[in-house]
Parts: sequence; C-alpha cells; structure tokens
Amino acid sequence: MPLPAEAVTALGNILGNRISLSRSDLDLHGRSEAWFPPTPPEAVVYPETTEEVAAIVRVCAAHGCPLTAWGAGSSLEGHALAVRGGISVDFTRMNRVLKVNPEDMDAVIQPGVTREALNVELRATGLFFPVDPGANATLGGMASTRASGTTAVRYGTMRENVLGLQVVLADGRVIRTGTRARKSAAGYDLTGLFVGAEGTLGLMTELTVKLYGQPEAISAAVCAFDAIGPAVETVIQTIQSGIPMARIEFVDAATAAAVNAYAGASFPEKPHLMVEFHGSTAGVAEQAQSFGEIVADNGGSGFAWSSRPEERNALWTMRHNAYYACLASRPGATALVTDICVPISRLAETVEETRADIAASHVPGPILGHVGDGNFHAILLVDPRSPVELAEARRLAHRMVERALRLGGTISGEHGIGMGKLGHMAAAHGEAWDVMGEIKRALDPAGLMNPGKMLRQG
Amino acid sequence: MPLPAEAVTALGNILGNRISLSRSDLDLHGRSEAWFPPTPPEAVVYPETTEEVAAIVRVCAAHGCPLTAWGAGSSLEGHALAVRGGISVDFTRMNRVLKVNPEDMDAVIQPGVTREALNVELRATGLFFPVDPGANATLGGMASTRASGTTAVRYGTMRENVLGLQVVLADGRVIRTGTRARKSAAGYDLTGLFVGAEGTLGLMTELTVKLYGQPEAISAAVCAFDAIGPAVETVIQTIQSGIPMARIEFVDAATAAAVNAYAGASFPEKPHLMVEFHGSTAGVAEQAQSFGEIVADNGGSGFAWSSRPEERNALWTMRHNAYYACLASRPGATALVTDICVPISRLAETVEETRADIAASHVPGPILGHVGDGNFHAILLVDPRSPVELAEARRLAHRMVERALRLGGTISGEHGIGMGKLGHMAAAHGEAWDVMGEIKRALDPAGLMNPGKMLRQG
Ligand SMILES: Cc1cc2nc3c(=O)[nH]c(=O)nc-3n(C[C@H](O)[C@H](O)[C@H](O)COP(=O)(O)OP(=O)(O)OC[C@H]3O[C@@H](n4cnc5c(N)ncnc54)[C@H](O)[C@@H]3O)c2cc1C
Ligand SMILES: Cc1cc2nc3c(=O)[nH]c(=O)nc-3n(C[C@H](O)[C@H](O)[C@H](O)COP(=O)(O)OP(=O)(O)OC[C@H]3O[C@@H](n4cnc5c(N)ncnc54)[C@H](O)[C@@H]3O)c2cc1C
Repeated sequence: MPLPAEAVTALGNILGNRISLSRSDLDLHGRSEAWFPPTPPEAVVYPETTEEVAAIVRVCAAHGCPLTAWGAGSSLEGHALAVRGGISVDFTRMNRVLKVNPEDMDAVIQPGVTREALNVELRATGLFFPVDPGANATLGGMASTRASGTTAVRYGTMRENVLGLQVVLADGRVIRTGTRARKSAAGYDLTGLFVGAEGTLGLMTELTVKLYGQPEAISAAVCAFDAIGPAVETVIQTIQSGIPMARIEFVDAATAAAVNAYAGASFPEKPHLMVEFHGSTAGVAEQAQSFGEIVADNGGSGFAWSSRPEERNALWTMRHNAYYACLASRPGATALVTDICVPISRLAETVEETRADIAASHVPGPILGHVGDGNFHAILLVDPRSPVELAEARRLAHRMVERALRLGGTISGEHGIGMGKLGHMAAAHGEAWDVMGEIKRALDPAGLMNPGKMLRQG
Repeated sequence: MPLPAEAVTALGNILGNRISLSRSDLDLHGRSEAWFPPTPPEAVVYPETTEEVAAIVRVCAAHGCPLTAWGAGSSLEGHALAVRGGISVDFTRMNRVLKVNPEDMDAVIQPGVTREALNVELRATGLFFPVDPGANATLGGMASTRASGTTAVRYGTMRENVLGLQVVLADGRVIRTGTRARKSAAGYDLTGLFVGAEGTLGLMTELTVKLYGQPEAISAAVCAFDAIGPAVETVIQTIQSGIPMARIEFVDAATAAAVNAYAGASFPEKPHLMVEFHGSTAGVAEQAQSFGEIVADNGGSGFAWSSRPEERNALWTMRHNAYYACLASRPGATALVTDICVPISRLAETVEETRADIAASHVPGPILGHVGDGNFHAILLVDPRSPVELAEARRLAHRMVERALRLGGTISGEHGIGMGKLGHMAAAHGEAWDVMGEIKRALDPAGLMNPGKMLRQG
C-alpha cells in the first residue's frame, strides 16, 4: 500500500472532507476512456488552492506516495490512472477563470476549467480559446497531454497556446514559468517542458493561455473525392497557396456511411473534406472560392460552401456526428482510438495502407482526422468482451504507429503516451528517451509524479 | 589553461588543419557585437560533420575542457564568448541545406546555414523561411537564442519554427528530437528545450525548420502618430480585429529624426508604425484599408499604403535604415542594444517611461521594436572610451528590465541572456531558475557546455 494511514491523516488535516476513500470515488478515478483494466487509486483529493496542492505534494513526498493528476479523465492512453497506487489529485474544484485580459488577448485560469466553460465565460468579450479536443477536457489535462483538435492547423496546439504556468514540483516547491509577454528568450522553455509532460514532472495549478478574437465571418465548405490521394493533394495545395484554413478535417468512406445510417443523411459514401475559414466577410468568401478551385482541379465533387450559420452546420454534419456515428455503427462496441501524425506528403499512403490493413482484419475501423496537420485516427470498434478482437485492434494500432515512424512521423499527434504507447517510446526516440528519463530524475528523483507513464519504468 | 596540450593533439587527430590556434582566429572568436571585453578562446575548431562534433565533445569531456558554439557571432549578450576558456566550435563549415521538402514545406539544414543563404537556396521553390533577426545569423545560433524579428507576429519565433533537431550532448551521445510531423504529443518537448538554451545543453548539428509559401501579394503601409499611446492602441485594435499582419514595426521620433539625417528623408519626426500584409491580392488590399481605418480612428496621420514593390520599399525606408541611421546619429558611438517584451496593454507606458528615463540621461537612445509582440529595443549610443557612459547605458538598460518585470513581461523578448542578463535571471524566474540549473546539471554535470552563461554560476 503506497498510501500509509499517517499520510491519509495528514491529507485529512489539510483538506478536511475533501479527501475521499469512498468506493464510488475510487472507482470513478480508476476508469479511463480506453481499454485499460480499471485501477482505482487509494484515495482521491480535491484541492482548491495552489497552497493545498503544495501541501499534498509534501505529504506524499514524505511518505513516498505516488500522485496522479486528474482533470476530466478524457485522455485516451490511460494517462490519468494511478497504476502504481497512491492518490488521484482531482482538479475539478480548481475551476475558476482568474482573469481575462481582453487587450492582451490572454486569460489566467485554474487547471480544472474545461474548454467549454472557458468559452462560455469568454462569450461577452468577443474572444475565444480555440483548442478543441473532442471531449470537454480541462485545460490542465489538455496542456499536460499537449492536446489539439480541429483548429490546430490555424491556431496551433496547446504547445503554442500556453504562455505560462504555475507548477507545484515533486518536492512541493511552487514555480512560475513564462510570462504574459507573447514571446521570450529568457532561459530554458520550462513552460514547453511541462506542457505535454502528462503530469510526470509537476502539477499545474495555474495556466496563462492565449485567446483570439472571434472572427468577423466564418465560411465552411465540404466536398467529396473518389480516393484519399486527391483529397490530400487538395489539402497540400491549399496550404501551399497560403489560404489560411481555420479547420480542415478528413473523413473516410466508412465514416460517411456510418453518418448516413446514424443521422439519416445521404452523403456519397466516399472520402470527404470539411473546411472552415475565419476572417473578414470578403476574405472568407474568397478563401472558400479559391479552395473550391483547388478541389475542382483535383477532381473533387459535390463542393458546397456557405457563410450562413445553419448552412455551415449542415455542411459539417458529417464531422460533428462522426465519432458517435462510428460507435453506433457497431452496437455494443467500444472504440480503441488510435492517433498518429505524419508529414503531409506521406499522409495519403499512410491512410491507404492503414485502410487496407483494417479491411483485411475482422475489426471495423473508420478513419478520420485533422488532415491539415497530417494527423489522423482510426476508430477501431471492438466487442469489449472479446480478447481476440482487442488483441487484433491493438495489433492494427501497433502497425499504424510503426508506419508513422517509418514515414517520418510521430507515434502520437495529440493523444499522448500514457501507458498505451509506452512500448513505442524506445523506437520513436532512441537515446532521446533516455534524456527524458534524465530530466524526470532531476525533477522527480523519487518517481512519485504519475509513475508508470511515458518514461522507461525503473 | 582548461585546454591541455593532449586535448589539442586529440582534436588535431580528428580535424587535421581544421583546428586553429592562430591569434587572428582566436581574436575573431573573442569579440562580440556587445560591450563585453574581448575574451578569446584557446582554440577554434571547424567541424564538418556530426560525427566530428561528437568526437570533439568526447575529447573535451575527457579533458574537462569547455566548449562554446559559434554561429555568426551576432548575438548581443556575449553569448558566444568562451569566457571560461576552452574551445570555440565554429559551425560555419556545416552550412549545407540537406533537404527541402516542398510538399511538407520544411527543410533539413546544417546549423551553420545563414538565414539569407537559406532563403537564396529556397528562391526557386516558392517557399521562404520567415524568421529575420537584423543580422545575417546562422540557423543554429538563431535557434539557440530563440531569435525572432519583424515577422514573428505572423510566423512565430524560432520556438514555433523548429520542428526537430539533431543534438550532440555533453557526453558525446547524438540524439534526434522531434520529427517532420507538424505536431506531436509523444513525450517531453526536447526540441523546445534545446531551442533557446544558448548552447548550454548540447550542440545542434542539424535542424528541421518550417517553411512558408511566398505570399501571392504583399502590401505595406506607414503612418505617424503624435504619441506612442495611440500608435500602440492602433496595434491592439488591429490584432483584436483579426487582421493578419505579417509585420508591424514601431520607430520613435528620435529614430525618425536619425533616418531623416542619414537618408536625406523628410519624415515627420514623430512615432511611426510600419506594417506589412501577406495574402491574396484582394486580401492584402482589404487589410491595408481596414488598418487605415483603425489608424484614422486613433488620430494617425500620413497614412499611405501600396502593394507595388518599389513603393513598398520606400514606405519601409525608415525601418530598413533605422539601425544604421541611429548609429550614425552619434559618430564614433557604439550601441548597447537592449531588448524587453511586455504584454501589449503595458507597451505604451513601458515605452513612455523608458523614453523619459533616456531623456533625463546624457546617453541618447532611439527606441524601435517589433511592436505586435510587445517587444522593443533602445539603441543606447555610448562613446566606447567612456566608462561613465557605458555605466549610464547599463543603468538605463537595467531599469528597462526591471520595468518589464514589473509590468508582467520578460527580460528578453528575443536577444537572450548570455552574460549580459545573467544578473536578472533570479528576479525574473525565482525558483524556476534553480529548476533550469537542475536540468543543466542532469544533462551536463561537468558544466562544460558554454559555461558562464544563462545559469547560476557554480
Ligand atoms: C470523444 C473524444 C474525442 C477526443 N478528441 C481529441 C482530439 O481531437 N484531440 C486531442 O488532443 N485529444 C482528444 N481526446 C483526448 C482528450 O480529450 C485529451 O487527452 C485531453 O487533453 C485530456 O484532458 P483531461 O482534462 O480529460 O485530462 P485527464 O485525462 O484527466 O488527464 C490527462 C493527463 O494530464 C494529467 N493532468 C491533468 N491535470 C493536470 C494538472 N493540473 N497538472 C499536471 N498534470 C495534469 C493527468 O495526470 C494525465 O496524465 C478525445 C477524447 C475523447 C474521449
Ligand atoms: C544589427 C543586429 C540586429 C539584430 N536584430 C535581431 C532581431 O531583430 N531579433 C533577434 O532575435 N536577434 C537580433 N539580433 C541578435 C542576433 O542576430 C541573434 O542573437 C542571432 O540569433 C544569433 O545567431 P548567430 O549565428 O550569430 O549565433 P552566435 O552569436 O554565434 O551564437 C549565439 C548563441 O548560440 C550558440 N550556438 C550557436 N550555434 C550553435 C549550435 N549549432 N548549437 C548550439 N548552440 C549554438 C552560441 O554558443 C551562443 O550561445 C541582432 C543582432 C545584430 C547585430
């Protein structure tokens, strides 16, 4: 038991009734969105201030007790599971937007704020926060997984959108990284080091994030292709010609079919692109039209665009419904969602090889992705009671990762490593993985911050 | 003598005549663009391959000999001076563009390629690399200082434009960081850690950088204001309204006066903004006009814009000549160039306080900057033979840094720390500076990589 009784007492002294040992709480924090077996923590704590987080960390340091942060638990590689026992530090009570600076277009927030809550709070300011993973994740969890989503092609990922952090280190020290200045050349980029560290180096207790002005106008367009090749060629040419896309999403024929069944639609069962442009009224019209010309040059069909909200939503129906339509296409199935990212010149072949691989297997797997970044997912639909299917899905996912590495890409574009991709880190990074371990040991010598994830396991 | 004779012999065995002990070579590598006293290294080496760099590092590790990388030597805080002796590793012979991938819009290059050479080599591809510090720096040096320039407001700094690195570590291991994929959530962001590390953690031997399509059209505009306040307000409103500026530069009245004298021009001796827009022909015209409206709303005068190359150049005369005009405004003077960056809402007061501070001193100092990022410089013009003036300039620079910190900014927006800003690191970062030291010790326990810079000195 990594969590001794004295530690529970000490935590209780700090948190009063905001430490929970209840079965339901432990179970809730022992489940993930992924296929990993449930592993409940020994206790869940609900801090409300940075000082409480620092005090919790000091208690754990004194007792050698592991700590695993918990945001919304929406990560897909088992990131937030306390697999070595110890406590789950649930940030949902640290959910305040502390300050919005409209002139500087930034906000200072607590880590438990969700992206939807942040955007609701920003509505009156004319500003928004763009990073949009499919789930309503917390900003602390998103920063820690280096999340992105449909808008990364225009606004960047969490890497580009976190200006600064407050972090509690493994020994209880509280540091600040970054500033509210837009750029800095003053020392190591510690902000960038904690972003994407999956809670293995410290706990974020405050984030400063960039905001953007709501665009004056938005246009959206959709089109179909007979094959993935010309769809990707369209994306490449659009990027090269400098047309500033705010979103560009790909869905394959299987996804189109699933959406037709799910939403009673009648899209051609072909690969599709969906794009969105943000800018001035004249600008977004021009951009949609220039895009349409590139689509035509590449043999695309069914091109339609609009800047009217209802029509835009209709054009994006396929993307909005994609995930649940795919799930519904195989009743009772769970999804093993994979995530790779390659240089865009290799995207068509990567998707095609993956498509063929899945077609040759008995597990269905629609493909969709943030194609402007070269990033895509297969939603592998398995019967949760079938170890054979799970093994097959894992084999397919494994081959996708190998394909990404072979073609100059990364083993995860946005979901991260957690436990699910630990086995690929050596192949992906070689000795650079050792360097990550050296940094980890420098900042967390006892290995108490989210052990069992991302790093070589001692 | 940190460089023993056996080490020289061992280096000679690796490099043949590409190790130099000649006085002129040592002197050249002992000078900087800044006011620091010359400190020549004990030898200069000119590697041509990664393997040679690794072999050099191993020799130095075996003999406890410091290594300081040298790109173009254009850094402004004494970064590249071998202040603890040892060798200067000059990267100018590693100056090849290894691969350009037009579809992926990236290039793999050696660190000694200069930004101008890279853009010459890219000309035929229709692509360009945007980061443009005033000097013709090397990409290795620019990455290591986290450089930026006039285009950062649109294209980002080196932080956003380096996708991956090959690095030789202090023990001679060679690692790769990042991939050619546009984003990644696979482990610690080591690329981001080495970018801006000023050669204190390892030597970059290869960089993968992002490229951009040359815009179809470019428009430029210029305008004057009676005070800095409305100029900054114009910038803020332009950013908020989502008009995508490619460049937005500020020069103060003193700079305008210097340019008038230097270039025989007759600009009003007032604060000016110069902007540039990149996009489609219709887009850049619309953007220049929308900008003009914001200028008018803020009482700006003399607004003029054009998308014709010669006219654009004329509009930007002031900026292109600014640095040399300022130098020439005080014959015989050397410049102590300062660099701070603040949240843009605090920019007007930061510039005004700085302006007043300089006006009250006997050292002249025109102000100009990359105002879209909240980043500006004062070019403090001192008589190099006058210790009193140098002390006064340092006092002014010191107060600028304190002002930046007080107003939520950073002690360096783009020039970096080197030796010149070491004394401000504790105030800027608090215990986070210790964390930088912990990372340094983890990766370079003997402290041989560019000692005397950025970190607390042991
Ligand atoms: C339907 C669906 C669609 C998705 N689509 C996308 C997508 O498009 N793009 C994308 O990037 N992701 C996507 N995801 C994955 C998921 O939303 C992200 O991984 C998310 O960023 C995690 O945030 P969270 O708040 O749920 O964090 P959690 O899952 O609770 O935690 C994630 C990791 O961060 C750590 N952590 C949490 N809070 C902190 C903190 N304050 N300090 C330090 N560490 C902390 C945890 O310990 C854990 O390691 C999707 C998930 C689902 C279920
Ligand atoms: C007139 C003028 C205008 C300028 N304007 C700007 C501006 O607008 N924006 C801006 O950001 N800067 C500006 N600078 C500063 C300067 O150009 C930058 O600091 C530049 O980025 C340094 O590049 P370099 O090749 O000259 O490197 P050097 O000065 O040779 O070295 C800089 C640092 O990088 C390290 N280094 C060099 N190569 C490597 C390598 N391969 N691996 C590891 N470490 C390495 C060195 O050890 C040193 O610490 C200006 C300078 C001048 C003189």
